[in-house]
Amino acid sequence: MGQDIDPFRAISVSKRAHDLKAEGRRILHMEFGQPSTPAPKAAIAKAHDVLDTDPMGYWESRPLKERIAQYYKQHHGVDVRPGRITLTCGASPALVLALSTAFNPGDRVALARPGYVAYRNTLRALNLEPVEIACGEEARYQLSAAALDAIDPVPAGVIIASPANPTGTIIPADDLAALADVAKRKNIRIISDEIYHGLSYGPEIRSMLEFDPDAYIVNSFSKYFSMPAWRLGWLVSPEDGAERTSAYVGNLFLTPPSLSQHAGLAAMDSTEELDGHVDVYRRNRELMLEALPRLGLEKIAPPDGAFYIYADISKYTDDSLSFCLKLLEETGIATAPGVDFDPVLGHKFMRFSFALSTPQIEEAISLLEPWFAAQPQSHA
Amino acid sequence: MGQDIDPFRAISVSKRAHDLKAEGRRILHMEFGQPSTPAPKAAIAKAHDVLDTDPMGYWESRPLKERIAQYYKQHHGVDVRPGRITLTCGASPALVLALSTAFNPGDRVALARPGYVAYRNTLRALNLEPVEIACGEEARYQLSAAALDAIDPVPAGVIIASPANPTGTIIPADDLAALADVAKRKNIRIISDEIYHGLSYGPEIRSMLEFDPDAYIVNSFSKYFSMPAWRLGWLVSPEDGAERTSAYVGNLFLTPPSLSQHAGLAAMDSTEELDGHVDVYRRNRELMLEALPRLGLEKIAPPDGAFYIYADISKYTDDSLSFCLKLLEETGIATAPGVDFDPVLGHKFMRFSFALSTPQIEEAISLLEPWFAAQPQSHA
Repeated sequence: MGQDIDPFRAISVSKRAHDLKAEGRRILHMEFGQPSTPAPKAAIAKAHDVLDTDPMGYWESRPLKERIAQYYKQHHGVDVRPGRITLTCGASPALVLALSTAFNPGDRVALARPGYVAYRNTLRALNLEPVEIACGEEARYQLSAAALDAIDPVPAGVIIASPANPTGTIIPADDLAALADVAKRKNIRIISDEIYHGLSYGPEIRSMLEFDPDAYIVNSFSKYFSMPAWRLGWLVSPEDGAERTSAYVGNLFLTPPSLSQHAGLAAMDSTEELDGHVDVYRRNRELMLEALPRLGLEKIAPPDGAFYIYADISKYTDDSLSFCLKLLEETGIATAPGVDFDPVLGHKFMRFSFALSTPQIEEAISLLEPWFAAQPQSHA
Repeated sequence: MGQDIDPFRAISVSKRAHDLKAEGRRILHMEFGQPSTPAPKAAIAKAHDVLDTDPMGYWESRPLKERIAQYYKQHHGVDVRPGRITLTCGASPALVLALSTAFNPGDRVALARPGYVAYRNTLRALNLEPVEIACGEEARYQLSAAALDAIDPVPAGVIIASPANPTGTIIPADDLAALADVAKRKNIRIISDEIYHGLSYGPEIRSMLEFDPDAYIVNSFSKYFSMPAWRLGWLVSPEDGAERTSAYVGNLFLTPPSLSQHAGLAAMDSTEELDGHVDVYRRNRELMLEALPRLGLEKIAPPDGAFYIYADISKYTDDSLSFCLKLLEETGIATAPGVDFDPVLGHKFMRFSFALSTPQIEEAISLLEPWFAAQPQSHA
């Protein structure tokens, strides 16, 4: 049998939420990073058209690869040969491709703790060794160049995420450059998860490609482009890895849905509509930030981007999963326990997703306030 | 860097075919197993409906899992708990899931040679060791129970495929039972690829689940259901592996396209339409079998099912890739060289897919006959 990996515990909260909903309860889903905004109108229109006119065979969209290359030129001033871009069924298989082509079994790969649960688990499933580096409030929950430099022995790779999940923190340009310098000096391969690009509430979002041409870049249409279940993502491989990635994807995964590739191309020109979605999330974030002190949640990571708030709940509990389940039972609000993101300190944290509609956020806040007010602060 | 794996050489033939097409050449695509028949009408209608009414978030269709469980009951008399069924983006990630959850790095996994190129390559990518067993004409190109029993040391697993790619041969019930007996006695885990189920031209198709409740079963909507680029497949895990598969899929892949899950459910009730597609392939197969002797291709594997003919071309060449490329340049017919399926003997074989329309098959035959007649038989 392969390596044992942890289940994603937010899924157990979500399953309970769906059971309660089936019993007639009103549920607000703040447990996953799933945009409540719809796919762009042009994407849906294109999909209708494709259903009626296209034979929908196995297909890799050359126009979409070229459009993604153009995106890197426009947004990041970087030239990417379309042949370095691999289209995938979402960001998840793109990460599997990057990790399985770049590393050998037993290789050590560094990552920040807290971090997205699937990094650790996918590394384990591929028989790589996650080297989790505790990154606290003072480091804005991100791995610094100094922290990467200090890892002994030197890891084969490092996973970077900006904006990050669960915290939403963005790594500034200077810090990305410093990380790239350490990686180059020590021959550490960078995997940069850029799935939350496009979702910033202030700080500039830069791509690791601007600093390290040898990094693998993971991205998808699931967040900013508001097309999560269309299952479309991409991997940018470095020149020295592109051919291997191509061989791997042709054997391990084949192509992503043809419908989604056509629709994704249309989505990339729907900037005005998509930026309108970001305005919704910006408003939701403001409402949440105003409300958090009234919930007694003063200690949070700075949510620069993405659509998450990672909050310290240590004054209320040292068992975040039970706390999230109690919140769900008593208010109908589903959230993600910190243990998914940090096996060491996550029992004292929880993650709220604010990727809902603004009325839903207002409703959630009106339920959260009295509930938190009623919780004993025995752990304060 | 991960393991080096071979590229799928049919892709290079296909790329050349697309280049020729771009130059204005008429091309007939016999290189891939891609149904020329469209998705069922009900699936397309459902997809239109979903685009207009469904938020299309991350979703696992419980009704689809129940319908697949019902399929196993109806067709194979086997009870499968829906919780053992994992929905995936096609059969490829289902195979990755099965191999990565069932085995440890370095484990040896047996498979027939010739066989689908991705078995060998996916095993290597996951750092498993393919143990290829030469299976010739006398064994109908399938691994027998005796051959499995004779492997020394005993492998951790075996991949079975019936109907097989590239040959189309179907394993009879008695032989499946015998394979299951050896596997049980020697503690060998069976992975059964049943992606061509539904496509038989005579022999009964049985599921390995009827004989081995501990087998992993891979299947998809890409062949019989005629929905290749909808990227929808499934894995049936044994009871002792279901929980691990669930943890793996939640981390490595998430869910398949929600649109495709809705449409796939509709497709499962489109039996009459889909069986009409099989009638097209049956007619194509008859036309090809009539024509092959006129091409000098008397030695072929018995194409019981699927939509392939695997032909011995040793009288014409000992370099199947060059032969396929020459055929493409001179006739516009793209085919797959045997080297993709058999690294040892494949230089003397080629695979034709007859998953085209019947007029296309007739056109192909009219081009193949004079071309083969003009080829020197120096290697006879």
